[in-house]
Amino acid sequence: MTAQEIATLLQGEIVGDPNVEIRRVAKIEEASAGDLTFLANPKYEKFVATTKASAILVSTGYDTARPPVGRLVFIKVPDPYVAFLQILKRITPMPDPFPKGIHATALVPASAKLGSAVSLGAHVVLGENVVVGANTKIGHGCVLGDGSSVGENSVIFPNVSVYHGCQIGNRVILHSGVVVGSDGFGFAPRNDGTYEKIPQLGIAVIEDDVEVGANCTIDRATMGQTVLKRGVKLDNMVHIAHNVVVGENTVIAAQTGISGSTKVGKNVVIAGQVGIVGHIEIGDRSVILAQSGIPKSTEPGKTYFGYPAKEHLRALRIEAVIRSLPELAKDVEQLKRSLEELRNLLSKPTP
Amino acid sequence: MTAQEIATLLQGEIVGDPNVEIRRVAKIEEASAGDLTFLANPKYEKFVATTKASAILVSTGYDTARPPVGRLVFIKVPDPYVAFLQILKRITPMPDPFPKGIHATALVPASAKLGSAVSLGAHVVLGENVVVGANTKIGHGCVLGDGSSVGENSVIFPNVSVYHGCQIGNRVILHSGVVVGSDGFGFAPRNDGTYEKIPQLGIAVIEDDVEVGANCTIDRATMGQTVLKRGVKLDNMVHIAHNVVVGENTVIAAQTGISGSTKVGKNVVIAGQVGIVGHIEIGDRSVILAQSGIPKSTEPGKTYFGYPAKEHLRALRIEAVIRSLPELAKDVEQLKRSLEELRNLLSKPTP
Amino acid sequence: MTAQEIATLLQGEIVGDPNVEIRRVAKIEEASAGDLTFLANPKYEKFVATTKASAILVSTGYDTARPPVGRLVFIKVPDPYVAFLQILKRITPMPDPFPKGIHATALVPASAKLGSAVSLGAHVVLGENVVVGANTKIGHGCVLGDGSSVGENSVIFPNVSVYHGCQIGNRVILHSGVVVGSDGFGFAPRNDGTYEKIPQLGIAVIEDDVEVGANCTIDRATMGQTVLKRGVKLDNMVHIAHNVVVGENTVIAAQTGISGSTKVGKNVVIAGQVGIVGHIEIGDRSVILAQSGIPKSTEPGKTYFGYPAKEHLRALRIEAVIRSLPELAKDVEQLKRSLEELRNLLSKPTP
Repeated sequence: MTAQEIATLLQGEIVGDPNVEIRRVAKIEEASAGDLTFLANPKYEKFVATTKASAILVSTGYDTARPPVGRLVFIKVPDPYVAFLQILKRITPMPDPFPKGIHATALVPASAKLGSAVSLGAHVVLGENVVVGANTKIGHGCVLGDGSSVGENSVIFPNVSVYHGCQIGNRVILHSGVVVGSDGFGFAPRNDGTYEKIPQLGIAVIEDDVEVGANCTIDRATMGQTVLKRGVKLDNMVHIAHNVVVGENTVIAAQTGISGSTKVGKNVVIAGQVGIVGHIEIGDRSVILAQSGIPKSTEPGKTYFGYPAKEHLRALRIEAVIRSLPELAKDVEQLKRSLEELRNLLSKPTP
Repeated sequence: MTAQEIATLLQGEIVGDPNVEIRRVAKIEEASAGDLTFLANPKYEKFVATTKASAILVSTGYDTARPPVGRLVFIKVPDPYVAFLQILKRITPMPDPFPKGIHATALVPASAKLGSAVSLGAHVVLGENVVVGANTKIGHGCVLGDGSSVGENSVIFPNVSVYHGCQIGNRVILHSGVVVGSDGFGFAPRNDGTYEKIPQLGIAVIEDDVEVGANCTIDRATMGQTVLKRGVKLDNMVHIAHNVVVGENTVIAAQTGISGSTKVGKNVVIAGQVGIVGHIEIGDRSVILAQSGIPKSTEPGKTYFGYPAKEHLRALRIEAVIRSLPELAKDVEQLKRSLEELRNLLSKPTP
Repeated sequence: MTAQEIATLLQGEIVGDPNVEIRRVAKIEEASAGDLTFLANPKYEKFVATTKASAILVSTGYDTARPPVGRLVFIKVPDPYVAFLQILKRITPMPDPFPKGIHATALVPASAKLGSAVSLGAHVVLGENVVVGANTKIGHGCVLGDGSSVGENSVIFPNVSVYHGCQIGNRVILHSGVVVGSDGFGFAPRNDGTYEKIPQLGIAVIEDDVEVGANCTIDRATMGQTVLKRGVKLDNMVHIAHNVVVGENTVIAAQTGISGSTKVGKNVVIAGQVGIVGHIEIGDRSVILAQSGIPKSTEPGKTYFGYPAKEHLRALRIEAVIRSLPELAKDVEQLKRSLEELRNLLSKPTP
């Protein structure tokens, strides 16, 4: 593609030679001749002067006169990153790491129902009455328990374990090592200090368009359902306890854990290593910053930070004082001394 | 079962129609006609007025006159949740997701010893001299290394990896993705900045009645044993380092990590995302609240919270001050100004 | 071996009977007759008086006259732990849990290239064009995606998943449950609140002499490479996001997570459960203490602690004040009262 063709496709404005040929895409600091790159994060602006890319996507307001431009062609678009993704998908064909068809070593009982063009990898094990929808790909070594189901156009990478009865929707992606439907952590204490296991009789449900990162665990419900609603995205090693419901289009970064029966709203953004206690509600569109500990329900649309978490602006004000606590403590000591001096001064008899 | 039959079984007191038929169990907010439900957590009391259940287990002191009762039958028992579990087990047969017998694709060397009625799933691999006790079920894709053993009536879900020489007791449950006996994290620094691996020659031992959640990792000892003692319960993604010993009936919630050689006592309760340093002792019956960081040994029976952790009541008092630190800082500034004013007043000559 | 032979090998000084026979090695508190043990951590000095070991490695300056020595033979060396490891490797042959050769159930396409003496376990699946170097051992149930490669003398424990195109070096150890090359967590928000997946087209590269603990996840890059450089050691359940680069000989303890595009320097030491934000740089030889949250780049050689992290000594001073905050708050209240009293005193007319 030429720079002009890219600019036309993106309805962008071109600054520089429209005929330069683009063959690949690359990050700004790693690009070489023939590459298209982009500038979205201001941190990377310093690389504009030195990048070896042939063309760069910048935001509409970018001042192309500022840096020493050289032969670099600028293409101005409203959102350089989204525009870059569009071109990336055109130029770079996504590899398909799944073999075609049903591998000879895959175990498919007569009771299983497979849609058209299903791919089952080597050593896949389907339980009784499993349903797999059309065009879905299941990687080597995956196990789908009795009565579980996967919708259409879903992708399950190798070595995933889905327990009996769990339901997975359409266009879902599960990465390797994911466990869906393991028992929730439920035990009733006996008088002698031992624990009785509470049967975990519910299921886990993963709705359409969900992506679950490597080695995540989604427990089945004690009764009823644990649910990841449509469009949820989980990073790696996220723990979803029994009876949790995560609302539509909520994104959760790596190593976060959500305790039992908590309801997370829609369009929530949860950063990494966050912990959320059980039996609370996380309001729609709230934002929870990294490593926060959430001890009670949060309000919609608000941002939280800290351990235990506070509203973000309050947390920042508190943190500012914490950073200068040694000086504050010294001030208090000085005040005590000064006050004592004053008191002594006053206790002297007026001359 | 009728409500009367349930009340008789539980030795409970019935309020309402004793002949109502119960066919299923359900959570209070999800129940429908024919369901038995329960009220244990006061948070859910609001649902008593609206639940569609036919009968509800409540605690002995519950005032059945309070809510608009309608046709809902109350059964009063000392512990509604435990009573509920009893009925649940009667009414709902636990599904058995394990196939009977030894799957044709399971690999069992001549040196392995299998008890009666063992279930081995598809693609299970047993190493040399592995011992599996009677009635134990091992899920599809599990690997048990040379010389490892599992007792009787244990259940290992699919895709679990047990390294060579590790020992697993009776009535143990290991969920999918668990790794038992991986090398401890031990390296000796060399002078050139590289590290020499310290051989991990010990084993990991999981005693009777232990349950280990999905994707947990239990490292083998450098020498000797890493041990989960009888009755320990681990939630998902718990990390147990080399040479750790976890005492009887200790429960550990998700994503907690325990560093090398630490001894955790009996009947300890550790919440989620807790981190415990190595080479310390956690006292019997102590409680460690969520996300705490434990830098030194804890005393028996005490509760800890915070990063770094303090005794709980002390931590609460500290946190109360932290929450009002911006105001405290303002007070100190105001005190400095007021004191300065006073000092100026005093330095004026007496008229 | 006799104690004398050990002392000679280590060039150590012997105190006691040089002819005592050593047959095994053990930890000081678990040793019995015939065992060699060591004393490195002063915490364990109390066991010197009671250990049943026949010989003990101590540091050169150790005062062998202090404890009641009995028949215990002391061998003085500069570094007792490193010396102990040398003897341990001599006395205890490391078990080799990998079977010889290519298992009949391993799937090796014609396009795969295997070096000499490769071990492939049962149900191993190699994709197209996979390369496995000489003497490398790949455990049961591992999956290596199309175009991936492993160098020589590497060890991959059972049930590891390596995605297509990823590269693993020589003398690498991957423990069970590791996932290499899963998609990075990248999504572009659409106007309707849903997310568009950003294709993850790069790879993950694991250089020589790296060890990766059980159930770690190493995401592939969006473009380019995620890299664990030569000599990196990861404990269990470490999360490495897309485009992260971890420098030579950096060690990272369990359950730590590093966000996208962050560059970690060389010879860094990162403790457990640390969280590091994306797009920053961690300076060479810096040390990050447990559970710290790192919000911005760190300087080489410095130690950090806290959430959010501060320089260690500063963090300790802050923590000291935090521990006495309730008293500080009381002091401030008392100051306010005292000042008010003084003010009242001053506002009285001079008699």
